[in-house]
Amino acid sequence: MIRVSILGTGNVATHLFRAFLKSEEIEVVQVVGRNSEALRAFSGQTRTLSDFSNIREADVFIIAVKDDVIVKVSEYVNHIKGLVVHTSGSVSIAALSACHRYGVFYPLQSFSKDSAVDMRSVPICLEAHDSPDTDLLDTLATTISDKVYRVDSTRRKTLHLAAVFVNNFTNHLYHIGQHICEQNELPTEILQPLIRETAAKLERLKPYDAQTGPARRGDNKTIDRHLEQLKSSEFKEIYEMMSASIGKLYR
Amino acid sequence: MIRVSILGTGNVATHLFRAFLKSEEIEVVQVVGRNSEALRAFSGQTRTLSDFSNIREADVFIIAVKDDVIVKVSEYVNHIKGLVVHTSGSVSIAALSACHRYGVFYPLQSFSKDSAVDMRSVPICLEAHDSPDTDLLDTLATTISDKVYRVDSTRRKTLHLAAVFVNNFTNHLYHIGQHICEQNELPTEILQPLIRETAAKLERLKPYDAQTGPARRGDNKTIDRHLEQLKSSEFKEIYEMMSASIGKLYR
Repeated sequence: MIRVSILGTGNVATHLFRAFLKSEEIEVVQVVGRNSEALRAFSGQTRTLSDFSNIREADVFIIAVKDDVIVKVSEYVNHIKGLVVHTSGSVSIAALSACHRYGVFYPLQSFSKDSAVDMRSVPICLEAHDSPDTDLLDTLATTISDKVYRVDSTRRKTLHLAAVFVNNFTNHLYHIGQHICEQNELPTEILQPLIRETAAKLERLKPYDAQTGPARRGDNKTIDRHLEQLKSSEFKEIYEMMSASIGKLYR
Repeated sequence: MIRVSILGTGNVATHLFRAFLKSEEIEVVQVVGRNSEALRAFSGQTRTLSDFSNIREADVFIIAVKDDVIVKVSEYVNHIKGLVVHTSGSVSIAALSACHRYGVFYPLQSFSKDSAVDMRSVPICLEAHDSPDTDLLDTLATTISDKVYRVDSTRRKTLHLAAVFVNNFTNHLYHIGQHICEQNELPTEILQPLIRETAAKLERLKPYDAQTGPARRGDNKTIDRHLEQLKSSEFKEIYEMMSASIGKLYR
């Protein structure tokens, strides 16, 4: 049995908590957070407290808070014997070096509060300062996920950067696509199957091989016509830059 | 029973053919194409021929060829009584105006030859010069798809433009993400669940509401660090432009 404490009440804290509850090998001994409203969602299922100076012992303390308050929250547990980890993609393991034992437990997924995620398919990236602690994190991670990776801080930051491209920027392209549809009285859900298939195709094809469209073909007539159709200079710039980058890749 | 002829042997022709074969209300009377190798994939299942001047009568002739040869192929059937349609997102219906009856049958999906697609979930966008022909196309489309839309040429071109953003450009972002992983000895499949969830989330959330990340938060410290990490000036430019566009949207 691994005793876990969760420090934080946001999306990552909530999704990890739900996954841990399902496992018989994990006991969530407490959830700690300042926001008493958010804390209420956890009450009845574990001990909840808003007073960080009143934290009980546990094997692993998971700090699931915003990047810029990780260090501050860690000060409440740096005297403790348990292993302290944060869940951030872009913060170094060294941010926790004032703790006795420390590491990182980074689930690579974009969590939304009201939307269920199958944690078994979420990659969890692990790192610990001491090698036995990596094994402990490994045991913890494999109870909730089938995809556990050991990734050091440098590579984790790179992974976070790659995630910004495939998640944040992709989502922005979805926004632009839907915006174009709305402005032309086309139902936005008409793009949905194409979006789904574009993502699903990656299971079978490398994106390099899956690419289609005017930029890949070097079809400048269509590209010019599309640029004419676009009214927003911002969208025009994005169109031009992405097309140029695709064009360069295939020629 | 609707008798259909397919002119062309590429991805769109292949996927439509497979879908039509499953329907008892449709008979594919012939597939016509110059490429005898490609034509062979259809033989045994319908009449195949490479001689365009030897085409038999049918109710609907579907021209599924590259945009720039649609007009040329249509010349083989412009004397015919049947309805002639093309399958392009960006070519106007007027390209077929030399035919007696003409229209458009545009399936909005990115087809790859070796990858099965559930045609029932593929939006089919219809347009016909004469109103009774729109009804005929509607009957044809609903036998293979649950998502049939009537979309005129102007809006169809806009839709095709939106599709370039959510399909071609998104796929390029996948390529960049995987490239960053490969260069840093991270397994590329580690991004897969995030990519899948980013697309799946759209069924429940608008992309405007689903957005997360440093650009949305206005977290310039992380943005600057990411720009430092990027070695390629091209990827840097894409990162900056996308982040600026997201930043503008939320402030």
